[in-house]
Amino acid sequence: MPASPHAIQPIPELFVTITLTAWHQQVKRATNLFQTFSTEQLELEIAPGRNRALYLFGHLIAANDGMLPLFGLGERLYPQLETLFLRTPDRSETAYPSGETLKIYWAEVHTHLEAQFNEMEPATWFQRHTAMTNEDWQKEPHRNKLSVLLSRTSHISYHLGQLAMIRL
Amino acid sequence: MPASPHAIQPIPELFVTITLTAWHQQVKRATNLFQTFSTEQLELEIAPGRNRALYLFGHLIAANDGMLPLFGLGERLYPQLETLFLRTPDRSETAYPSGETLKIYWAEVHTHLEAQFNEMEPATWFQRHTAMTNEDWQKEPHRNKLSVLLSRTSHISYHLGQLAMIRL
Repeated sequence: MPASPHAIQPIPELFVTITLTAWHQQVKRATNLFQTFSTEQLELEIAPGRNRALYLFGHLIAANDGMLPLFGLGERLYPQLETLFLRTPDRSETAYPSGETLKIYWAEVHTHLEAQFNEMEPATWFQRHTAMTNEDWQKEPHRNKLSVLLSRTSHISYHLGQLAMIRL
Repeated sequence: MPASPHAIQPIPELFVTITLTAWHQQVKRATNLFQTFSTEQLELEIAPGRNRALYLFGHLIAANDGMLPLFGLGERLYPQLETLFLRTPDRSETAYPSGETLKIYWAEVHTHLEAQFNEMEPATWFQRHTAMTNEDWQKEPHRNKLSVLLSRTSHISYHLGQLAMIRL
């Protein structure tokens, strides 16, 4: 048995592991929850007159899909979701993707993100994201890709708290 | 201007800064929200028949206060909140602390935590917490104080999502 866990993993990798573990925990909780929703249940509102589960489902897909361009990992997989679920409130449009379609998108986005994250070198996480100028980042080096991932982790949790209020 | 932000802050400290920044963001959002609630508004439910804002207020205070013993930083400031807000659902008891009292507790707990966190050496964050055996920690060194802080950060966000549903 090693004398210290730091002997197993150098500190920068350990920190990335901690952050990715927190991310995966929330993704897994959301995946498990959305899997239990039927097409009809996705139409339920988190409270009378508030967002439907379907809207929050699309909202989280679109928000997390946005990490691809933000981290310089390519284009969004589903750019058509951006306006619908990030820029306009629920029921702004007459047509929304079906629950079954969103379940496929959810799986695709998170499988793709996981593969991309697994290929990233630990040091890459400490680089600035594309929405930040180099000058700003010099002043605030803690605002990097890792901090964005933490923010997206809390974002999932925020809406999970709301989704938990739906009585199935 | 320095050539690299890592020249300003060594990598382990940068990790801690990233995590503490995420923590402070959620604490600040919650502080700002709870400050806007009047005593009457704290009695409002997040949805019909669900938790009152007051209960979630006490719940977050008790959860965050619990980091003190968990991190070996002393006893809870308000141990009397543990059963009321962590072990039993809302309205289990007939008497709850007032909203004004909880506002004082909230400020005390988070001011105290901040002072304690500021005194912690970066390396301390990578140590195990007191609820984990040394053996388990050797196997999973990413489950440390920093990962608990990340978990508590998402926990605040979870309930902020619910509190945002209250129409004031």
